[in-house]
Amino acid sequence: MLENTNSPRYIKLNDKDNVAIIVNAGGLSEGTLFPCGLTLTERVPEGHKVALTNLEKDEPIVRYGEVIGFAHSTIEEGSWVKESLVVMNTPPQLDDLPIANKVPEPAEPLEGYTFEGYRNEDGTAGTKNVLGITTSVQCVAGVLDFAVKRIKEEILPKYPNVDDVVPLNHNYGCGVAINAPEAEIPIRTVQNMAIHPNFGGEVLVVGLGCEKLVPTRLTPDGSTEDIVSLQDQIGFSNMIKSIMEMADERLARLNKRERVTCPVSDLVIGMQCGGSDAFSGVTANPALGYAADLLVRAGATVLFSEVTEVRDAIHLLTPRAVNENVGKALIEEMRWYDNYLQKGEADRSANPSPGNKLGGLTNVVEKSLGSIAKSGNSPIVDVLSPGQRATKKGLNFAATPASDFVCGTLQLASGMHLQVFTTGRGTPYSLSMAPVVKVSTRNALTEQWHDLIDVNAGTIATGEATIEEVGWEIFNYIIDVASGRKHTWADYWGIHNDLSLFNPAPVT
Amino acid sequence: MLENTNSPRYIKLNDKDNVAIIVNAGGLSEGTLFPCGLTLTERVPEGHKVALTNLEKDEPIVRYGEVIGFAHSTIEEGSWVKESLVVMNTPPQLDDLPIANKVPEPAEPLEGYTFEGYRNEDGTAGTKNVLGITTSVQCVAGVLDFAVKRIKEEILPKYPNVDDVVPLNHNYGCGVAINAPEAEIPIRTVQNMAIHPNFGGEVLVVGLGCEKLVPTRLTPDGSTEDIVSLQDQIGFSNMIKSIMEMADERLARLNKRERVTCPVSDLVIGMQCGGSDAFSGVTANPALGYAADLLVRAGATVLFSEVTEVRDAIHLLTPRAVNENVGKALIEEMRWYDNYLQKGEADRSANPSPGNKLGGLTNVVEKSLGSIAKSGNSPIVDVLSPGQRATKKGLNFAATPASDFVCGTLQLASGMHLQVFTTGRGTPYSLSMAPVVKVSTRNALTEQWHDLIDVNAGTIATGEATIEEVGWEIFNYIIDVASGRKHTWADYWGIHNDLSLFNPAPVT
Ligand SMILES: [Ca+2]
Ligand SMILES: [Ca+2]
Ligand SMILES: [Ca+2]
Ligand SMILES: [Ca+2]
Ligand SMILES: [Ca+2]
Repeated sequence: MLENTNSPRYIKLNDKDNVAIIVNAGGLSEGTLFPCGLTLTERVPEGHKVALTNLEKDEPIVRYGEVIGFAHSTIEEGSWVKESLVVMNTPPQLDDLPIANKVPEPAEPLEGYTFEGYRNEDGTAGTKNVLGITTSVQCVAGVLDFAVKRIKEEILPKYPNVDDVVPLNHNYGCGVAINAPEAEIPIRTVQNMAIHPNFGGEVLVVGLGCEKLVPTRLTPDGSTEDIVSLQDQIGFSNMIKSIMEMADERLARLNKRERVTCPVSDLVIGMQCGGSDAFSGVTANPALGYAADLLVRAGATVLFSEVTEVRDAIHLLTPRAVNENVGKALIEEMRWYDNYLQKGEADRSANPSPGNKLGGLTNVVEKSLGSIAKSGNSPIVDVLSPGQRATKKGLNFAATPASDFVCGTLQLASGMHLQVFTTGRGTPYSLSMAPVVKVSTRNALTEQWHDLIDVNAGTIATGEATIEEVGWEIFNYIIDVASGRKHTWADYWGIHNDLSLFNPAPVT
Repeated sequence: MLENTNSPRYIKLNDKDNVAIIVNAGGLSEGTLFPCGLTLTERVPEGHKVALTNLEKDEPIVRYGEVIGFAHSTIEEGSWVKESLVVMNTPPQLDDLPIANKVPEPAEPLEGYTFEGYRNEDGTAGTKNVLGITTSVQCVAGVLDFAVKRIKEEILPKYPNVDDVVPLNHNYGCGVAINAPEAEIPIRTVQNMAIHPNFGGEVLVVGLGCEKLVPTRLTPDGSTEDIVSLQDQIGFSNMIKSIMEMADERLARLNKRERVTCPVSDLVIGMQCGGSDAFSGVTANPALGYAADLLVRAGATVLFSEVTEVRDAIHLLTPRAVNENVGKALIEEMRWYDNYLQKGEADRSANPSPGNKLGGLTNVVEKSLGSIAKSGNSPIVDVLSPGQRATKKGLNFAATPASDFVCGTLQLASGMHLQVFTTGRGTPYSLSMAPVVKVSTRNALTEQWHDLIDVNAGTIATGEATIEEVGWEIFNYIIDVASGRKHTWADYWGIHNDLSLFNPAPVT
């Protein structure tokens, strides 16, 4: 039920803010008078910023209580604070950041929350019962896709307790500088995806035979019994037969599994945003931040990511690191990425996208402040380099690019069961290994993409719901999806994006 | 008909060579006596090198008439020249290379060769009649795959003259440093693939709406009429409907096209190798080089590629450049790649793969000498930077990584109609936009992969066929496939690999 909200409305987030964003769909026209007495001197689009006071040239522009830039010239009260009027400030220096000096007090534990999952032998739990088929090199993808199609048609119907068969195709494995220092990132990503908790401990690797990423690097203890090597097969038909036989054995075992009640502390939940707008930092991200705090209180592992969107707000995160080591690790991930971008002659202004800007996000500083709202108010207990497996319960920073697919792939490698994805402009992105829950920042997007958006946070902007209410809605929705009781729209339609590895090393 | 060849056999390619490779399947054992009097002092595996004379420590080891390295220690006549015994020489310096000083004389034109193709309005010809659906960003891939499945089931059967509907999914478009200097490579690759000659001039782009790679960069003159923008659609069902309607219009037009007789000079043929072994440079690559010369004599455009496999033989290529500019362009592509690898702290030793080495290829120098045999003996008329469209008929060097998928994708962007792919170890790699013809270097692989290998060049090693004979076989096979009369095994099975863009710029 989306209420009509015709009265002019803006959102100011912090007492120090000298700008606010316009809430009304379609924006507000010149002359609009707000209850507080503010009058618009020109039209301001939806999601864009209005000046709450007169701003002198070079005066700081403040949102979220933080400086997002400086006035390029005089800005009159009630006028539109366009991108061209905001001079971006320099990013926080990495050398003198405060570390672990404002570690949040542990919040009251949330007891008794459970989901229905699949218990694994190693103590982890799965939220789906899936046969994952790992690949050591892209060469095999066409053959594997052919085999998976036949497995789904001919074998999977015999095993009703198995949810899916997922080929882990990627474009790594050969034609790459396998010994370059940064090659460890894509390699450990593939290694960790192969042992995803939703695969129930079953391993099946399809390799070629002459690739640089030797298939035994992807099996437990380097054993060969879980590998189909295509160069050892007598022709194509035999390749398909071998893969199908190996799959059948594993599917029979997976089919014996049943859902059991597991504590929420077994969950690993990833978070990211994509197609962000000015509402992301006001509605969906704070609601997700609230849900993240609930998950942490319930003992779960929560991942937030996207280095380029965190970089400009890093001074707000290092104080929340639980200790000096975690703070330093956060800083090292920022430094690594600064250097990576610089080697490619790019910089942080490469983010945001034109769509972000149309949505009212002026620059990466403003985007970052909105983005970190997802992280809630918990202490940061650990930092994962790209593709590392999470080992500590609580809020983790999993360093990844902001690219939706790359972030998604890396969070899967970290053991993610489910990703919550906030979006203002809208994206149909999804993954086949784990559900992606779409949270809309705006009522208008929720209405327009009625068969793609799972949770609406737009009601926060219109005052129809609180951040806490939507936060609880997200928390409960996660438990329902993790238990197999509800399905995301993307899973309902079966639309999924390919994995996209992060390979900062050269191809050859 | 593969003759049994039990008598011991080695191949020496050049009078200057002091090593030769063992031909016999399974290798030859210690004590084997050759007709020439040479006796093996130890077992030498198939495809590996035997010393034809005693070699002192530091003496040059010569194959293809070129130095492939230096003896690490004394090597006795008749012994196995293992990888550990060969010290790699430094790559040719790029500063003082001879340019255009040995430009081959134009060979006698081959007149009258034609294929049955589709004539395009811009004067090019297609070898297939395909609806290509371009994407501006990876976000849309799941939705597009869903739509393409329905188009193939519900619409394509109405249009029997259309061969296929191909979604051009890739992992570029957002979350990337779109203004980085090297971003031009992936961008022009997508742009040029969108206008592939097999698409008959029809353009259809599916975009999201907020991506960095603005969809109008992918349409002729930046028009919007060929674009479906998902953020403009009312929900998922409507997205599918819009894509299907736009596809239907274009399929109706494509269905009116018919094959007509076209000269072979309309063809653009790509070449590469993958899963190479020591026979690659002796059988399949020289035969392909002979076919390339035939194609050039018939006026076609021929692309050879794979910078890392050409780098160590560059001194043999610059003399064949038609002029100073082409020679300098060749050198610039080598320099660019040297620098690219160095930035990633990798070097040319990253190529070859373990499979190459098992197959008898000691190092990248030896691999390069075998690889450039594909280029035949024609003058090099032009050099394409990665993803550039070919514009000059004759032999072009299209600079690409050696990675099979990346090379294939870039050659498609250059306008390639068909790729000839030589392989010694075997790979099932194929592309959906254009056929990939597999040429085996060995009889044993041809027998083993009887339903994947299209042409056998192994008969050259056993003396059952000449390089010229297999070259003509490849030439005629290309014409048959281009005319739609024959189909590659991979197309028969429908196994295809995804596109893989070359993006040397950072992701964000
Ligand atoms: Ca984001
Ligand atoms: Ca993202
Ligand atoms: Ca090759
Ligand atoms: Ca290759
Ligand atoms: Ca795919």
